[in-house]
Amino acid sequence: MKRRRIAILGSTGSVGCNALRLIGQMPDMFEVVGLTTNVNISLFKEQVDTWCPRIIAVMDENKCSELASAISSKGVKLSSGPDGITEVATFKDVDLVLSATVGSSGLMPVMSAIKAGKQIALASKEPMVIAGKLLMDEVERSGTILIPVDSEPNAILQCLEGRKKESVRRLILTASGGPFRNMNREEMTKVTPEEALAHPVWKMGKRISVDSATMINKGLEVIEAHNIFGMPLSSIEVVIHPEAKIHSMVEFIDGSVLAVMGSADMRIPIQHALTYPERVPTPLEPIDFFQIAPLSFESPDLDRFPGLRLGYEAGRAGGTMPAILNAADEIAVETFLKRKIGFLDITSICHQVMENHEVKTDPDLEEILEADGWARNEARRLIGQ
Amino acid sequence: MKRRRIAILGSTGSVGCNALRLIGQMPDMFEVVGLTTNVNISLFKEQVDTWCPRIIAVMDENKCSELASAISSKGVKLSSGPDGITEVATFKDVDLVLSATVGSSGLMPVMSAIKAGKQIALASKEPMVIAGKLLMDEVERSGTILIPVDSEPNAILQCLEGRKKESVRRLILTASGGPFRNMNREEMTKVTPEEALAHPVWKMGKRISVDSATMINKGLEVIEAHNIFGMPLSSIEVVIHPEAKIHSMVEFIDGSVLAVMGSADMRIPIQHALTYPERVPTPLEPIDFFQIAPLSFESPDLDRFPGLRLGYEAGRAGGTMPAILNAADEIAVETFLKRKIGFLDITSICHQVMENHEVKTDPDLEEILEADGWARNEARRLIGQ
Repeated sequence: MKRRRIAILGSTGSVGCNALRLIGQMPDMFEVVGLTTNVNISLFKEQVDTWCPRIIAVMDENKCSELASAISSKGVKLSSGPDGITEVATFKDVDLVLSATVGSSGLMPVMSAIKAGKQIALASKEPMVIAGKLLMDEVERSGTILIPVDSEPNAILQCLEGRKKESVRRLILTASGGPFRNMNREEMTKVTPEEALAHPVWKMGKRISVDSATMINKGLEVIEAHNIFGMPLSSIEVVIHPEAKIHSMVEFIDGSVLAVMGSADMRIPIQHALTYPERVPTPLEPIDFFQIAPLSFESPDLDRFPGLRLGYEAGRAGGTMPAILNAADEIAVETFLKRKIGFLDITSICHQVMENHEVKTDPDLEEILEADGWARNEARRLIGQ
Repeated sequence: MKRRRIAILGSTGSVGCNALRLIGQMPDMFEVVGLTTNVNISLFKEQVDTWCPRIIAVMDENKCSELASAISSKGVKLSSGPDGITEVATFKDVDLVLSATVGSSGLMPVMSAIKAGKQIALASKEPMVIAGKLLMDEVERSGTILIPVDSEPNAILQCLEGRKKESVRRLILTASGGPFRNMNREEMTKVTPEEALAHPVWKMGKRISVDSATMINKGLEVIEAHNIFGMPLSSIEVVIHPEAKIHSMVEFIDGSVLAVMGSADMRIPIQHALTYPERVPTPLEPIDFFQIAPLSFESPDLDRFPGLRLGYEAGRAGGTMPAILNAADEIAVETFLKRKIGFLDITSICHQVMENHEVKTDPDLEEILEADGWARNEARRLIGQ
C-alpha cells in the first residue's frame, strides 16, 4: 500500500485515539499530517509531540493560546474554530481524512474534504444522518471514496462490496439492545446517567452510549444506511443481537445472507476504513468461535424503545427531519446527563420537537443547519431552559 | 439474464430433482437441453416427458432399451454408459452443466465439459477431492467458471468473491456435527444404518448422510476447499455449528469475518450456482432471524470423529491419497449400509487402506483412477469380501 497522508479530525476522542494507536503499529503505511481536537488540550499536546503533524486545529479558540506556546518551536501550522478544522481537512498534502468529531460538527469539514477529493473515513454518523444526500451527491461528483467506520455500516459496506445493488433484498442492522434491553418502561423511569453510560459491549463516547440505551442510535443508523447505500427504509431492518459478534448483514434476493462477524473491537472497522480498499494484518487476536456464547437474535420492541421508531419516522419524513431528530436528541441527552430530565424524557422530547417541525424537503446545507439550530432551541424550550 | 441451455448429470438424484424444480419456477431463464441418470428409469421417463431435452443418457446400459421404446417418437438422442454421460456434458448446444451424479462418476464428464468451455455447477464433491488440481488447472486453461453447489464451498466462494486471495487468513467450514455429535465411541459401535442416515439438518443422498455421521464428509470438504480455493490445509478450519444457519465463513487478515447464512435448504446454493454470476429472486421464504435458535459453535472432536482427521491427513499427503480415502470410504459405507460392518469400521477401514497405500505425487487422471480402483479392492480385501 502506498503511504497515506492522513488528517484526523477529533484525534483526542475514542475513535481518534484508537486510530492513532493502530497507525503507530503500521508506521510505514501512514503519515500523520493533520490533527484536530475540540477541547482536550493536554492530550492533544502529547499527540502533537508524538506525531509531529504539519497542521493542527483546535475548535475552542480560547484554548489556542495555551497550545501556541507549546508548539512555537515546531513549525506546526495552528488554526482554530470551524474554519481551522476545515483547513486541516482540506490541507493539500492530505490523502485521507478520518472524521471522528462529536456530533454534527464534522459536517462542514467533511463536505469540504470531499470537494477537495480526499478519501473519507467517516466515524461520526451525524453528518450522514442530517445531510447524507448532499454528502453522497458530492462523493459521486468528486469521484472519491467514503467509508463508514461505525461497525454496522462498515459491515454492510463489506457485504455489499462488489455486489450489484439490484440483487439486494434487505439490509439487516444488528443492535446489541443496549444496557436496558430487558427493562420495562416503569424501570426505565429511574435510570441514571451512570447506568445509561454503561454499555454492555462497546466502549464509546457519552452521547452514543446514551443513544444506544434509548436505541435512538439505531434509529439514526437506519437513516445513515439509507443515505449511504441508497436503499429504501422499508428494506432496512433492525435485529437485536446482544452478543454483538455479527456486526450487520445483507440479504440478497436469492436467499443468501452475507454477514460480517468479528470481535466487538472498534479497531477492526477503523483499520478497514483507513486501509481501504487494501486489507492489512490486524495486531488483534483472531475471533475464537469456540469461546463465544451462542449468538441470539430478538425482535426490537418499538413500544419499549420508541427511539428506534423515531429514526424510521424521521427517515420517512425526509428533508430536514433527520437533522431535527439528531439535534433534539443531542440537547435531550446533554440535559439527561446533567440529571435535569429523566431517561424516558429523551425520546419524548425528540418526538415532540419532530411533531412541532415543518419539514423542508430537499434542503440545502444552510437550511439543514438552520433546522438543526431550530431543533436545539425548540428542545431547550420544551425542557424549560 | 440470457437464457441458459443446461445439462443436468444425475437429474433423478436429490440435487437434480431440486434443480429441475427451481428451473420450473424460472421458465424464462433456462432451457433443459440434456439429462442423465444412473438407474432410476421410471422417474427419468417422467423428467424426459416434462422437459423434452434434446439429448439424454443412462449410465446403466441394460436399462437403455426400456427407455428407448418410450421416447422413440420424440426425436431425443439417447446414449448410454460413461461415454453417453460425457456426450451429454459436452453437447454443443449446452452452456451450463450441473454435475450432480453420485461419487466420483462425474469426474470424466466434468473434465470433458470444462475442456469444452462449459460453465460448471459442481454438486458432487468427489471429482474435486480426487482430481481437484487437474480440474482447476483445466478451468484456468479454458477460462470457464466452476461454481460448487454444496452449501459450504458455495458459501466460501460467496465470501471470497471480489476479494484478494492475499487478504484471506483462513477459511472456516461449518459442520452440523451430524446425528452422533454428542455420542461417545462406545455408543457409536451400536449405530444402525437407519440412525446414520437420519441427518439432523440436511436431507441428502445415502452416502453423504453416512459421511456426515462419520465426519469423513467434512474431511473431504477440507480437501475440496483446498483444491478449489488454493488455500493451504493449515488455513482451513472446521467449526461445529449444529444449527446449520451459517454455511461457512472466511476470516480476513484484518480481523473481519465474512459469513454466508441462510436456511438449510439446498435450493439456495443450487440456484446460486445455476444463475451465477447473476442473482435472481428465490421462491423460498426469507430467513426469519427471530425464529431461529441461538447459533452455537463447538470445536470438532477428532478422537470421537477420526473421519475429519483422515481428511486432513489425505490432503496433506496429497497426490493420489485423497482418491484413496474417497474410494475406500465409498466401499466401507456401502458395506456398512448392508450391515456387514459396524459404523466405527468405516473410518478404521479408510485409515487402514490409506496406511497401505504408497502415494503417487502429481498423478494424472489415469493414475488417479488406478489408485481409486486399487483402494476399492483393498477395502474389499480388508473387509474380507
